[in-house]
Formats: sequence, C-alpha cells, structure tokens
Amino acid sequence: MFNLFQNTTDYIEFQPGEAIFRAGDPPDVMYSVIDGEVDIVFNGKKINTLGKGSILGEMALIDASPRSADAIARTPCKLVPVDEKRFNFLVQQTPFFALFVMRTLVERLRLMIQETGKI
Amino acid sequence: MFNLFQNTTDYIEFQPGEAIFRAGDPPDVMYSVIDGEVDIVFNGKKINTLGKGSILGEMALIDASPRSADAIARTPCKLVPVDEKRFNFLVQQTPFFALFVMRTLVERLRLMIQETGKI
Repeated sequence: MFNLFQNTTDYIEFQPGEAIFRAGDPPDVMYSVIDGEVDIVFNGKKINTLGKGSILGEMALIDASPRSADAIARTPCKLVPVDEKRFNFLVQQTPFFALFVMRTLVERLRLMIQETGKI
Repeated sequence: MFNLFQNTTDYIEFQPGEAIFRAGDPPDVMYSVIDGEVDIVFNGKKINTLGKGSILGEMALIDASPRSADAIARTPCKLVPVDEKRFNFLVQQTPFFALFVMRTLVERLRLMIQETGKI
C-alpha cells in the first residue's frame, strides 16, 4: 500500500476489460493504482489482481525491457502514470518509495517461487 | 556491477564449498561480492552464479523472510555484509544503490520467467 499518489490529479481512467498494457509492449511508464483493480494476465492466465496502493509496470521501467504480461482493468480504474524521470526523482527524493518498489519486486519473486516451486 | 564496496575492508572470506547461507535461514544481512564467485542453489540445483559486483541475500533483507535458496562459495570469496541499518542508509544516501538493487531484483524475475515460462 503506497499513498504518495493518492491526491494526484494527473491520473488516467480505464474501463473494465480495457488493456493498460500488453506483453511485448515497449516500456514507457509504470502506474500507481489510486482506485479500482487491475488483473495481471500471463499467457492467458490471471496471475495476480492489484488494488489501490499497488504499482504495476515497474519491471519494464527499471530495465527498459518489453512488458512481461498483460495488465487489464478489472473494474473502473484510476492510474497515475510515472515515467522514468519522475521515477528517478522519486527514488532520489523519497527513500520510502524506493523501499516500496523493492518490496513489491520481492513479493513478485516470492509469489513466483510459491507458484512454480522454482526460483 | 556495483563498485560501492570495492574498497571496503570489513569483508568476510569464504572458502570453496562453504555455505554463506542456507534456504530457510533467518534473514540478517545481504552481501556484496567484492571478489570470487558464489553459486545460488535451489532444491539442489544451481540456478545462478554471481561474481564480483553482484549482491546476494537482498530478498530476505527487504521483506524480513527466511532465505529462499542456498548460497555457496564457488571459489575463494570476499563478501561485504550489509545489515538493515546500512542498507537503509545506502538507499537514502545513494539513489544509485537503490536503482542497482531494483535492477538486480528485476533480473532475477526475468530469469525466473525465462526458466519457468511463468510469471
């Protein structure tokens, strides 16, 4: 849960079923969910649902690689886009943001380890 | 590759075959490799070899969970231990360190996606 963006007005709205991004898309921004829920879909299988306070799309932003999965609005959503410049600024100015991103990445790793029994 | 610790003298030496940590161990520190190579072993299978400039054990430090895998010295190694206090200090004072940790975590995720075909 991360509240840094809760009062931001530069959000984008998505409707249920709408794709926020698709696997293979070039990286541009990550998103912070300030309202609604987003399904993460990999090879046609839903692997996670992210709610208010979650971030998504951070992997592509960090290593400048294409998206790994689809992100589809599950409900009406409000998402704040964070581009590389804003991301780097947040990491520099808000250590709690950096730690939050790290914890999110570790959660994803733990989830994968659980799901696959591999590392 | 991360050079912040290259001139540090508070390193620990490990001999080939020696365990740096084992899966299930409680988290205490992460390590930065300043010399040598470390094998990461999961369920008896080597999944990665980390060299000079790599970090290991960062997951357990970030989410305070037990170790996910064994880390075994492959060659004579010099590792700098980084406890939570030092880690948080580095994240706050050295944004490049925070970004390096994030990139490392994303690399691990990409590797898992490749290995398992899952996310």
